[in-house]
Amino acid sequence: MASSTPKNKVCILGSGNWGSTAARIIGSNVAKLPAFDNDVKIWVYEEMVDGKKLTDIINTQHENVNSGQSEYFTDTPAHLSTPKTLLATFDRYLPGHKLPENVIAVPDAAEAVKGATHIVVVIPHQFIQNLLNTIHGHTLPNARAISLIKGIGISNQGMTTMTQIIHRTLAIPVSCLSGANIANEIAEEKYCETTIGCSDPDEAIIWRSLFNKPYFQVNCVSDVIGVEFCGALKNIVAVGAGFIDGLGLGNNTKAAIIRIGFLEMRRLAMHISGAQIQEATFNESCGIADVITTCYGGRNRLLAEAFVKTGKPMHQLEQEMLNGQKLQGYLTAGEVFSYIDGCGVTDHFPLFTNIYQICYENRSPRSIFDGLNVDFSQDTLGTMAPL
Amino acid sequence: MASSTPKNKVCILGSGNWGSTAARIIGSNVAKLPAFDNDVKIWVYEEMVDGKKLTDIINTQHENVNSGQSEYFTDTPAHLSTPKTLLATFDRYLPGHKLPENVIAVPDAAEAVKGATHIVVVIPHQFIQNLLNTIHGHTLPNARAISLIKGIGISNQGMTTMTQIIHRTLAIPVSCLSGANIANEIAEEKYCETTIGCSDPDEAIIWRSLFNKPYFQVNCVSDVIGVEFCGALKNIVAVGAGFIDGLGLGNNTKAAIIRIGFLEMRRLAMHISGAQIQEATFNESCGIADVITTCYGGRNRLLAEAFVKTGKPMHQLEQEMLNGQKLQGYLTAGEVFSYIDGCGVTDHFPLFTNIYQICYENRSPRSIFDGLNVDFSQDTLGTMAPL
Repeated sequence: MASSTPKNKVCILGSGNWGSTAARIIGSNVAKLPAFDNDVKIWVYEEMVDGKKLTDIINTQHENVNSGQSEYFTDTPAHLSTPKTLLATFDRYLPGHKLPENVIAVPDAAEAVKGATHIVVVIPHQFIQNLLNTIHGHTLPNARAISLIKGIGISNQGMTTMTQIIHRTLAIPVSCLSGANIANEIAEEKYCETTIGCSDPDEAIIWRSLFNKPYFQVNCVSDVIGVEFCGALKNIVAVGAGFIDGLGLGNNTKAAIIRIGFLEMRRLAMHISGAQIQEATFNESCGIADVITTCYGGRNRLLAEAFVKTGKPMHQLEQEMLNGQKLQGYLTAGEVFSYIDGCGVTDHFPLFTNIYQICYENRSPRSIFDGLNVDFSQDTLGTMAPL
Repeated sequence: MASSTPKNKVCILGSGNWGSTAARIIGSNVAKLPAFDNDVKIWVYEEMVDGKKLTDIINTQHENVNSGQSEYFTDTPAHLSTPKTLLATFDRYLPGHKLPENVIAVPDAAEAVKGATHIVVVIPHQFIQNLLNTIHGHTLPNARAISLIKGIGISNQGMTTMTQIIHRTLAIPVSCLSGANIANEIAEEKYCETTIGCSDPDEAIIWRSLFNKPYFQVNCVSDVIGVEFCGALKNIVAVGAGFIDGLGLGNNTKAAIIRIGFLEMRRLAMHISGAQIQEATFNESCGIADVITTCYGGRNRLLAEAFVKTGKPMHQLEQEMLNGQKLQGYLTAGEVFSYIDGCGVTDHFPLFTNIYQICYENRSPRSIFDGLNVDFSQDTLGTMAPL
C-alpha cells in the first residue's frame, strides 16, 4: 500500500559551503526516511576545476573541492549567467568533507527541480530572482520550498522577505531555516541548533526530519517571517559589536551593545510587522543565539572592527579584506535607518541610528554610546501598539 | 529651608576592586548631589602595606594600592577576624585608579556606618553575616542598603538572597545592583550598563543618582530578587560555556549553550519564585548581558575550561589557578541540582543537570549535549504554573 505512494524527492539549489553542508545532512537523513527517494539532486553552478567539470568531480569524488583559487568579485547587477558574481557572496566550496553518494550534482537548475517535492534554496540573496525565473514552470504544483538564505529587504513600505519572494514566483508554500550556524562548524559535526519557521505543523515535522541530526538540533516555530527577520537584523548588531572591538573596549561594553541591539531588533519587529512576529522566536537559535555568535565570530563584526581601526570606508575594506564580497550588516543598517527615519522614530532606535550614522555620515565610532539609555521594559511583541 | 534638612550620607562596606570602583563612582557623584554629604566613608579591612596602614595610604594617596603580594588562601569558616580569608574571594585592590579625595577609609565597620543613610554592601558573600552582626545596632533606623554581592543560597526550601539576609538582620529596606560589570573595565571608564533592583521607585531614583555615570548606565527595575537570581545563576551557564571551550568546540556550540542556559535560568526562576520574578528582568543588563559577558570572560568559564582540558577536580584547579579562591558556578550548580532533583523536575532542566553531573559525578564533558532538545517556547514568567 505505502509502497505505491510516490516518494518525496529533495532538490537543493546552491552548492556553496552552506548548500554543501545541507547536502551532507539531508543526503544522510533521506537514506533513513522511507517516504523519501534516496537520491538528492543538488544544483551546482558548473565550472571547470583543474580541467574537470565541478559536477563530475562531485559525482565521482563526492566532495565539493576547493579549486585552489580565491577569486571573489565585486557585486554587479545579478545575472545567473555571470558565474563570478554568482559565487561571490557565499563561500564556494566545502573541501575536506565528503558528500553522501546519494547526493547528485546537476548543472541545470530547471532540470534539478523536476519531480522535486521538497526544494531547498540556498544561494546568495542577490541571485534569487534570476534563479526563480529559471525554475519557474518546472516545479511540481505540490512542491514546497525552504529558504536558507539570510537577508530581507526593508523599504518605506515595510519589509520583504526571501520566503515572500520565493512564494510570489513559485506559488508554493515556503518555509525558512536560520540559526547560529557557521557552515564549516556544522560540517565538522560540532553541536549546534537551528530554527525552522514553517506555518504548517505537519510540514514542519517533515522539514525537521530532513535537517535534524544529533549534532544539528532543529526547533520548529510557526513564525516564518520572524525567523527571517532575526537572521537579517542580527547583522546590524554585529556591526556595532565590531565597532566596540575596534575601539578596544571590553566584554562589558560588548555585552551592553548586544543587549541593546537585541532589544532594538525586537522593537523593530514589533513596529514593522505589527503582531505578526512572535516574541518566542527571539528566544530560539535564530534569535538570541545567532546574535551572540555573529557578534563574536562573524564577518560583519570583522569588517566593522577594521573600519574603526583603519578609518577606511566599508566598500574599500570589502575589496581589501574580502575580495569584494559584499556584507549585509551595514547595508541592512542603511535600509533600517531609511525606514525608521521615514516613520520619524529614530529616537526609539538609538543604537541602530548611531550605527547608521557611523557607517554613512562620518560620525565618530565613539558616538555609538550616545543616547542609549532607552527603556525597553514595556516592549511586548504582538500586543504593543506600533510606535 | 532645604539647607536645614540633614544631609544623606553614604557608607561603602568593602574595599576590594569592586568596592573601590563603586567608591570612585559614588565619591564623584555625591559631590554634585546637594542632598548628600560630600564625604563618603569606606570600610577597609585594615592591613599593613609596606609598613603603613592601608587606611592611611588610601586617605593620603587616594589609591587602594596593590601590596605586591599575591596571597590568596583557601576558604575556611568565615570570621571577620580572619583577614586572609576575608580577602580571599574578591580582588583586593584597585591599583592605578585614584579614589576621589572625599572617599575616607575607616578601619572599623561599626564606626563607618554611623550616621549613614545609604549603605553599600560589597564584600565576599561568605562574610556577610559576620559583617552584619558587627554593624547591627549601629545603623540609623531610616538607613537603607544596597547589595553589590553576587550569590544566593538555594535549598530544598527555596532560595535565600543577599538582600533578604541583610534585611533580616538590619530591618531596613535593601536593594541590589548587578550587571555585566567587570570591575576593572568600569574603573577604566569603559562603557557598560548595570541594573538596580529596588522596590520603591523614589528610592530607585536616589540609588541611580549615586551610581549612574555616562560610562556606567543604570537601569532600575522593581524586581529585587530577580536581579539577584540572574547574578547568581549565570555562573552555572558560564561553567557550561567553559566546558565547550575546553572541548575545543566553536561559536555555534557556545551560543547554543548560552541560549539554553539562559532559558533554564528563566524556567528555574518561574519554578522557584512563582510569579515573583519578572520576565523583563531577564532582558536587563543583570540578565542576558551578564550571561554573555560571563560566558566569554569570567573565571567560572576559565576554571571549567581547565577542568575539561586537565581532568583535575574543581577544588584542585582553584588551588592551582586561583590560589584557593572559591568560585560560585559549580557550587551553585550543586545547589540547583539538589533543588530540582528534590522537586523531581530534572528532566525540565537538562543542561543544569548535565553540568552538575559532569562537575560531581564523573560524567564525560561531552554528555553536556544529552537531552537538550527541550521546548521552552511555552515558558512565560509570572503566568505559568509551577512544573
